[in-house]
Amino acid sequence: MTFQHVAIIGLGLLGGSIGLAVQEHLPDVKTSGYDADPEVRERARHRGLAATIADDPAEAVRGADLVILCVPVGAMESAAKAIAPGLDPQAVVSDVGSSKVSVSESLARALPGQTVIPAHPVAGTEQSGPDAGFANLFHQRWCIITPTEGTPRAKLTALKNFWRDLGSTVEVMDSEHHDLVLAVTSHIPHLIAYTIVGTASDLEEVTRSEVIKYSAGGFRDFTRIAASDPVMWRDVFLNNREAVLDMLDRFLTDLAMMREAIKAGDGETMFDQFSKTRAIRRRIIEHGQDDARPDFGRHDHD
Amino acid sequence: MTFQHVAIIGLGLLGGSIGLAVQEHLPDVKTSGYDADPEVRERARHRGLAATIADDPAEAVRGADLVILCVPVGAMESAAKAIAPGLDPQAVVSDVGSSKVSVSESLARALPGQTVIPAHPVAGTEQSGPDAGFANLFHQRWCIITPTEGTPRAKLTALKNFWRDLGSTVEVMDSEHHDLVLAVTSHIPHLIAYTIVGTASDLEEVTRSEVIKYSAGGFRDFTRIAASDPVMWRDVFLNNREAVLDMLDRFLTDLAMMREAIKAGDGETMFDQFSKTRAIRRRIIEHGQDDARPDFGRHDHD
Repeated sequence: MTFQHVAIIGLGLLGGSIGLAVQEHLPDVKTSGYDADPEVRERARHRGLAATIADDPAEAVRGADLVILCVPVGAMESAAKAIAPGLDPQAVVSDVGSSKVSVSESLARALPGQTVIPAHPVAGTEQSGPDAGFANLFHQRWCIITPTEGTPRAKLTALKNFWRDLGSTVEVMDSEHHDLVLAVTSHIPHLIAYTIVGTASDLEEVTRSEVIKYSAGGFRDFTRIAASDPVMWRDVFLNNREAVLDMLDRFLTDLAMMREAIKAGDGETMFDQFSKTRAIRRRIIEHGQDDARPDFGRHDHD
Repeated sequence: MTFQHVAIIGLGLLGGSIGLAVQEHLPDVKTSGYDADPEVRERARHRGLAATIADDPAEAVRGADLVILCVPVGAMESAAKAIAPGLDPQAVVSDVGSSKVSVSESLARALPGQTVIPAHPVAGTEQSGPDAGFANLFHQRWCIITPTEGTPRAKLTALKNFWRDLGSTVEVMDSEHHDLVLAVTSHIPHLIAYTIVGTASDLEEVTRSEVIKYSAGGFRDFTRIAASDPVMWRDVFLNNREAVLDMLDRFLTDLAMMREAIKAGDGETMFDQFSKTRAIRRRIIEHGQDDARPDFGRHDHD
């Protein structure tokens, strides 16, 4: 089986990019969309994020064999309830949320009997909203799918193929492991970035203007991550609490060790720590997960 | 006065970029260079990082009216001693180190009677060595100069003009304040990045291969910073200990507050924190200190 009609609920960066990517890579597949915000629907129509944009969630999913919920993880359950009246009982319901255990549970609660296959395309930018999406957001990125034992095989295969058609490489894992992996590769980095940007903004001895001027020393990179959507990220931390706290505590232990090394003037410990981290950067570039050019190829380095 | 002959000691990313920038922007100024590593000197000759590359440090500075030390801050004192035999007593000695109080003290110790004017161009990439430099590294970047009360005004003006000619905007401040500002905009971001990359590399439940695959969720940005030169950064933390510990402790206090919010499921605190950080990103972009394109304009977003 292959999907014939994809409905997208939530037309921000992710939802909009899926709509554009389907129209580019799967031109025979029908697309429809909905967003709870009328202004977003207006922009979505203007940009053509889906072929039709409905003013009602149940209407948007009518006739769809794949429905993808692209809303903050805290809004998944209510979004699922809102589409229920129009949902084909045979349709697959999926999502793009950054935490999977809680989403899995809330979608099962909202849509009993429906085939729910949670997914997480590991892709994004710091921008959000209906103007942020673009068709190749998923190119060369990983999409993690977290089925359960009861997931029908044909539907799982169809969802895998769907993401491959959008340019992604698909990996299947259980939702608990997903949440642990993403805690370290995504959630903790965001938490740290939000926190240090906050710390720097609140200083008295160093003005905000100085922080901005001299941000090219490293700080500006953190501000990009800390410009991500606050609602989305609040929901991630509310919904992946245990894995995040687990990883955060390990980071804090390591940071306390580095603090001691600095305090003691222990250059050897510092040098060892700072040397071992280069290898992982090299492998990320080898695996096509980042730009090899210095400084991400920022505009000023030609 | 304007400088007629610039000698560059240390031909890595910064030293090499200065050499290339002088040749591009100040073609009438003579350039000479030296690096303690014979292989680096070989590469420097091949790339033409300076018009002449000497095999002896004292030889490299002979006749120069401006000498810029571009070595890790822990190596400044010995580099200064090594050039002393060839140094014109009227020459200005400057540097590019990321901490200024300790460099200021060690250069004064090594070169009594010489005019020393420490400087710090806030520019760089994660790459290092003689192949990493490029002529426009300093374009639209800030250069901080930290003179003392006794610094001759004409020489200070000449140094400011030199950096302006290389494309930088110059700011003057005292070295203590510099070290505090840079602790927050550069040193703490590097320490955090090195630490979280280390934490992620050492996990047992999450494989290194998973960390690499799913790094596009935020982690990959930290690996870029954590790929910076380990000797340079060890020396920064050994030489700016107090300001770094001060700023680190503030960050740790804020992180503990976020940890409590996550533990308590306090979405309001998270939302407030995550909302206020967007403004600073906007201002960094308005001030030309970062690329406005999503995700720094990485290659896959066209």
